[in-house]
Order: sequence, then structure tokens, then C-alpha cells
Amino acid sequence: MPDLYDVAAIGNAIVDVIAPATDDFLAANKLDKGAMMLVDQAQSAALYAKMAQGVETSGGSAANTVAGLASFGGRGAFMGKVADDFLGEVFRHDMAAIGARFENAALIGGPATAISMINVTPDAQRTMCTYLGASVEFTDSDVDAAVVEAAKIVYLEGYLFDAEAARRAFAKAAALAHGAGRMIALTLSDGFVVERHRGALMGFIEGQVDLLFANETEICALFQTEDFDAAVSALRPHVKLAAITRSAAGSVILSQGERLTVKAEQVEKVVDTTGAGDQYAAGFMYGLSRGRPLQQCGQLASLAAAEVISHYGPRPQVSLQDLAAAKGY
Amino acid sequence: MPDLYDVAAIGNAIVDVIAPATDDFLAANKLDKGAMMLVDQAQSAALYAKMAQGVETSGGSAANTVAGLASFGGRGAFMGKVADDFLGEVFRHDMAAIGARFENAALIGGPATAISMINVTPDAQRTMCTYLGASVEFTDSDVDAAVVEAAKIVYLEGYLFDAEAARRAFAKAAALAHGAGRMIALTLSDGFVVERHRGALMGFIEGQVDLLFANETEICALFQTEDFDAAVSALRPHVKLAAITRSAAGSVILSQGERLTVKAEQVEKVVDTTGAGDQYAAGFMYGLSRGRPLQQCGQLASLAAAEVISHYGPRPQVSLQDLAAAKGY
Repeated sequence: MPDLYDVAAIGNAIVDVIAPATDDFLAANKLDKGAMMLVDQAQSAALYAKMAQGVETSGGSAANTVAGLASFGGRGAFMGKVADDFLGEVFRHDMAAIGARFENAALIGGPATAISMINVTPDAQRTMCTYLGASVEFTDSDVDAAVVEAAKIVYLEGYLFDAEAARRAFAKAAALAHGAGRMIALTLSDGFVVERHRGALMGFIEGQVDLLFANETEICALFQTEDFDAAVSALRPHVKLAAITRSAAGSVILSQGERLTVKAEQVEKVVDTTGAGDQYAAGFMYGLSRGRPLQQCGQLASLAAAEVISHYGPRPQVSLQDLAAAKGY
Repeated sequence: MPDLYDVAAIGNAIVDVIAPATDDFLAANKLDKGAMMLVDQAQSAALYAKMAQGVETSGGSAANTVAGLASFGGRGAFMGKVADDFLGEVFRHDMAAIGARFENAALIGGPATAISMINVTPDAQRTMCTYLGASVEFTDSDVDAAVVEAAKIVYLEGYLFDAEAARRAFAKAAALAHGAGRMIALTLSDGFVVERHRGALMGFIEGQVDLLFANETEICALFQTEDFDAAVSALRPHVKLAAITRSAAGSVILSQGERLTVKAEQVEKVVDTTGAGDQYAAGFMYGLSRGRPLQQCGQLASLAAAEVISHYGPRPQVSLQDLAAAKGY
């Protein structure tokens, strides 16, 4: 198969509602700061009624990564499930507008397009409550073999481990990708996702994953330790390649037993950390798909993460290609 | 009637889709920079398909003004028409979230909630294409007498002159307001609106308006001149009180024959001028409703306008009350 895509991603197709919130608001609504919680339709409506005035914007972790990749000039494809409603159209429009392929048919007569209510506190942390709606109806029949086999990297969003059918879709994607000599990347997505599915995730990492993305919380949750270095050491024998992010402390890249460190990019004012990990993955995979050395993949990753945390919203607002060029990366 | 509201506004209930665009995009789609054009559903869909990835956020000129007023700590009410769809819920939620009254029932079985596609060029100018949808179904039966009679200022959005039924609603609101000793304010909204309805607007200003808001383009269109000072002189005998904005050149206040000038507030970087006039009106009416001198009303107005043009989106992102306090206004 020719290389039609740098990255083909499978993830939850979600529209975000982003609004400012106070710590008191999080406490009053029993929300864990920085985490992602799943809510049902009734909880979603009740929380929305209490939230401040916000903005709606296409989101979804892996979809944000595809948007970041496109902003670097990379060629992306996305697989996920929206409903045939207004938010589904917005999500589809935004994928088309960035030039990414997204061909999955909309779900008809089922739940609405997924929505994530993101409360951003003054410390720029985002706390998410997600109603999965139509996105959880993604199944292995939605995995497009032609897309998977034509992508240098097939990127899977760990959040989908919450849905049994999506897990089967991951297995199918991994089999197709490896059958075509392609690379499977996985992001752990969230500490609570790791808690809920530790065994299944570990088995999938061992058996299928060529490139793992995680942050400090997630990697510590995976190995049930609070010691970052212990978690990294524990991970080392299980992965070929991994990138582990530590917010302002930069990131660590593990490759064939080697450990590289990458500094975080300076940010004047952190406004909203939504999408930081997603953009890190975008920059890293863009670099990797273009054959850049790992250190530079990490720098591109840090650059993309820095851009997205400097404003509200989970996707880049300026050209990451131009930013990278200005830095000489 | 007691003073329940500082301002009760009647306007188009619109959700904005805001995206970056180039001058070439405007030219290719025959869009007049800085203006508002009305589009039908088919034109709306065709334009949306070509627009860049954007964000959705509650808008509507008078509704933005109510949001600004609320941000100053003022008490606002809004009257307008949404459909019983997702965007209608978003609009209603955002009014509730800022603490403004909005009680008009949703339109059922008719057109969708109004949407305005706002293309923002790198010079920060916004060019709007609006599909009026449900908002144009606002009629005089939607004017709530109890709200109008309890508001210090009843604020009318000039865009509604495009709809015959809404014009009747304006007449009803003016009669109720003046019957209760209340003040009627009107914004001219847009140069092309003035071109389309010059006679009707002039008649309404003469007969009903106690406070007129306009920008340079609109006031010049009203008197068919390109000379700002000539337009201001021509306006003088027709109004008791008027505030005329000139972007970076500040604004002019006319009161009982007296002419005051107000400087624009400095802005580090103008990002998106959407909502500048709406926020100017918010600051001015907040000051007026609280008995501030006219010069200070103009300063509060300039402050609110400066905040909103420093970021994407038509409503304030920080507390205008805090901003004003920091300035000592």
C-alpha cells in the first residue's frame, strides 16, 4: 500500500463545551481536577445547566491530534462515530476544513454526538465530564482497512478501552496495521482509564503497541507507584518506543533501552491545558513520520503542546508548520 | 413598576461560528469585508462547507450587549427567538449562565436557530453571513410587557428592521416603554441595514428613540454623506442622546446639543473586532443606568469594547466589573 497518511487515528468523536470555572465549582459538583469522568445523558444535562457561558469546539483526543498533525502539514485520517445531528456536522466540517479524511457514516436513530464539558479553572487545569453518546457505538466494522493499511502510524486513543466494541476495533486495527507492516501507537489518555483497564491495557501494550504515549499520572497508575523513575524503569522492558510527558518538566523518550529527555517549550501564560497531550502526540508523530531524529520529534511535540496551552481550546490556532520553521525544527 | 432590569434588549438570537479567513477567501466568496450579509439556508450550508475550522459561541448583537452588561454587574433581560434545537439550548444556557432573563418560548416545527458565520481576517475585521432562521419569527406577541416596563433602558437591535414582524414588535416595545416612563435605545447595527431601511429608521429615531448608538459607517449611511462631521451635525437635531463610535479614533457623544469626545482604550493586539459595538453599548448603558456622568459612560463603553477585540469571540472573557474597578471608573 502507498503511504497515503502519516497518521490514521481511531478515537472518540467529541464536541467540547469549554467554560471557565472555580475550584469551588469543582468541589460542589464532586469533580476531580484534571481528570476525565464519564457521565450519562441526565448527568450531562444537569452539569451543563450549572456551567458558565462557554464556547463549543470540535474536540476528542485523537481527533485533536489529527488536527495538530494537519497543522504541521501532515496528512491525517480519523475514524470515529458521530450522530446525524448538528454537533456531528460541526465535527465533520472541522475534519474536512483541516484536510483530514473522515468517512465514517453518522449514527442514525441512536444517541446524540458525544459532548465533553470542560471546566477550566484559573490555574489552567481542565476537568472533563464526557457524555459518550454516539461515539461509543464505534465498532470493528467502522475500521477502514484501506485507511489503516495506508497509514505510516495507526494511533489509538486509550479512552476507547471503556467501550467493549471499540476494544475489538482496536484489535482489528492492530492486526491490519501489523499485517501491512505499519506501526501501532497508543495513548493511555487518563489515569482513571488506566485504573479501570490496567490488565487489558498492559496486555495490549505488550502484544501490539510500537509507540506508547502517556503522562506522569498515567504511567504511575499503570505500575501502581508514585515514583516516576520507578514507573519509567518498569515500563522499559515492555515498549519499543515511548514518550512520557511531565507538563512543565518536559518529557522522557524511551527507545530500545535508551532514555532521552526533552525540555518543555516556554509559555508566557498557560491559559487552558486542554489538548496538551494530544498536541504533544501530534508533534511527535509528525516528526517520526518524516524521519526526524527522536530528540527533534520531542521538540516538535513540546512546541505543539506549548501552542495549545496558551489559549482556550484543544486545537492549534496558528500554523504549527510556521512555528516549527521559525524555531528551525 | 420597580426597576428589575438595567437593560431589556430585543434582538436576533444567534449562535456564531467564528473562523479565521484570508482576504482571498472573502474575495472568492464575494463577501464585503466588515459587513453583515443575510444568507438563506442553502447559501449558509455552502459557505459553511468552505469555512475553516471554527468555534461556536452564543452571539447576536443585542444579546452580546446583555452579556456585557451582566459582566459589569448589571441586570439584563433579553427577548428573541430560538428554535427547539441544540443551538437554541446553547443560546438559552448562556443567557442563564450570565444571569440574564430570557423566557421566550422556543419555536417548534419551524426553521432552525439562527447562525452567523463570522470570517475573521488577519487584520481582525469580521465579515458576517447570517442565516436568520428562527430569530426572524420574533413578533410583537413575544414582547413581554412586564419586562419592558421594568427596565430602565429598552434596547433595540437595528438588524431587526429586516423583519416586518419584528418592526411591529419594536413599535409595541416603544409604546410600552414610553407609557411606563422608560427610555428607548436603538443601535443602527450595520451600514447595509441603514441603506435598506433609511426612511423607516429615520422615522423611528425621530419618533421613539431616546438614545442612539451608531458607528461612523452607519451614521454616514443614514445621512448619505462621507463626511463624519457633516453626519454628526445632521444627526444633532434628531436625537436627545447619541453615542457614535469610530474604532481606534474613539467615540463622540451628543447630548442636548453638546458634543463630547471619548478616547478609545489602548489594546495591545486587536484579534477579532466581533462584538466591539455591542460591548460599547453595554458599557455605555451600564454607566447610564447607574447614573454615571456621560464622559464616564463613554469610558466604560471604550473599556468593554477594548476587552472584546483583544480575543476571538463576541462576549467578554474576563469580568468587566473588575476591569472597570482596576481603572477606577
